Amino acid sequence: MFADRLHEKVLEFKNPTVLGLDPLYDYVPKSIRNSFVSECDAVYEYNKKMIDSLHEIIGIVKCQSAYYELLGPEGALLLKKTMDYAKSKQMIVILDCKRNDIGSTAEAYAEAYLGNGQYQADCITVNGYLGSDGITPFVKKCIEYGKGIYILVKTSNQSSFELQDLTLESGRMVYEQMAELVSAWGKSVIGRYGYSSVGAVVGATYPKQLESLRKSMTHIPFLVPGYGAQGGSAFDVKSAFDSNGNGAVINSSRGLLLAYKKQGMDHEQFDKAAIKEALLMKEQLNQHIVWEGLK
Amino acid sequence: MFADRLHEKVLEFKNPTVLGLDPLYDYVPKSIRNSFVSECDAVYEYNKKMIDSLHEIIGIVKCQSAYYELLGPEGALLLKKTMDYAKSKQMIVILDCKRNDIGSTAEAYAEAYLGNGQYQADCITVNGYLGSDGITPFVKKCIEYGKGIYILVKTSNQSSFELQDLTLESGRMVYEQMAELVSAWGKSVIGRYGYSSVGAVVGATYPKQLESLRKSMTHIPFLVPGYGAQGGSAFDVKSAFDSNGNGAVINSSRGLLLAYKKQGMDHEQFDKAAIKEALLMKEQLNQHIVWEGLK
Repeated sequence: MFADRLHEKVLEFKNPTVLGLDPLYDYVPKSIRNSFVSECDAVYEYNKKMIDSLHEIIGIVKCQSAYYELLGPEGALLLKKTMDYAKSKQMIVILDCKRNDIGSTAEAYAEAYLGNGQYQADCITVNGYLGSDGITPFVKKCIEYGKGIYILVKTSNQSSFELQDLTLESGRMVYEQMAELVSAWGKSVIGRYGYSSVGAVVGATYPKQLESLRKSMTHIPFLVPGYGAQGGSAFDVKSAFDSNGNGAVINSSRGLLLAYKKQGMDHEQFDKAAIKEALLMKEQLNQHIVWEGLK
Repeated sequence: MFADRLHEKVLEFKNPTVLGLDPLYDYVPKSIRNSFVSECDAVYEYNKKMIDSLHEIIGIVKCQSAYYELLGPEGALLLKKTMDYAKSKQMIVILDCKRNDIGSTAEAYAEAYLGNGQYQADCITVNGYLGSDGITPFVKKCIEYGKGIYILVKTSNQSSFELQDLTLESGRMVYEQMAELVSAWGKSVIGRYGYSSVGAVVGATYPKQLESLRKSMTHIPFLVPGYGAQGGSAFDVKSAFDSNGNGAVINSSRGLLLAYKKQGMDHEQFDKAAIKEALLMKEQLNQHIVWEGLK
């Protein structure tokens, strides 16, 4: 099942980092661009080089669907090929597509990405605004095919307060209520390490909320975006982990993809810069987090 | 701008119906299936026949992205071709994809579907759980390219109450707060008929909420799913319209696609059955709604 595979992958690599593969064409260096007529072929080459460079340091990749959809129908094939390539390197593949719908439409999404569809992600992100009708079809696929989902709870962006932080009559905030729904949805897919294949997205930019949700959502694993480029630090995300160092993975997209800029290296050296940055991120996470379960 | 084009299209056809093109391969009759090797080619032929049959009765089509994504990368091309074909028949094209993300990722989605991307929808559906950061990039495209969005407010499914109907400290429900956010987001794109290019999705299955939202969201047009197969009737949706009969479009997907079943006709007669059903739906809507603006 997904929860256990994810747990073991983090243990194997002693690294909860997720490589966020959000490739804008601008991120592809000239030498690769010049070798391909098609933008998608160039981006695929770039993605492969990122995966080749990092798959021995990072065990999990997250493809942000938007950047593939931006490339039109050919981008859909690029997405499939990128996910397949990452899987061929034994990486766990999360598709960040935040899908949401109801009934037979939710079933179609679930089948497309977690079932017998061509995309074959290990896990996708979903949005729970529609309630159980929008989530149950995905949970069923998690059970049937050993897949996973992460449901948006408290997102990393500045304006997430506008709806998510409103206080309900019950005294809870909207995101806390969503957290409670996620905990309930996750109960039917708990693995041998105590974590569910139904997880929550909680932003690195809200460390206090991260800490309190970690305490209340004891069996729910977190996917934490907002590290690096969005301002979240290793210190900020440490409370996403339980006392054994388990229960969270931390995504970095631009931090790794654009590492060459931060390090003042040439664009052509994007892969070497990414390796350096990935090792630094791993080290920083290990400094700030109590890795009992990983030592 | 989208709001005005939509308004004029409904007036032109004296029909606020939206043809929901959610084609499962099972919906395609044998004669078409047998003529094509590829599932996507068969579905494209089916979609074309539906559009050919109905484009003189119905002026708006809504493609449900999930059913195209289910067909893999080739489904992305099918989606583009279907939308292009509907536009070639002067239909307004809504892509129901409920996208949601923040910052540069939301910009990528907006560019992909409403900007210079290959898909070129007139309008897409989006989910506002993430707040302004997740909506502003789409609103900008609405202004720049004359496009539209519909934001989920109160969805048609049974479990929509789980989050959307919770009462806030302010006394409002969550969906009412979302409605208020949508009203604010829509203020910058109001057209000459008083309606915005930023609309709201409100289910036909909740007629009371539809009525009260129509009163509070005076400049926000509604996209109303849940008619027919999901149980909403012409009587249920009449309060979605303002006193001039404007301000809402009503989607029917399975009601039209599977009309042959309802009418006891042969599967091969799906197009003739759809025409009959579309005329009936138009008539029923016209019976129950005060069409001042349309007469």
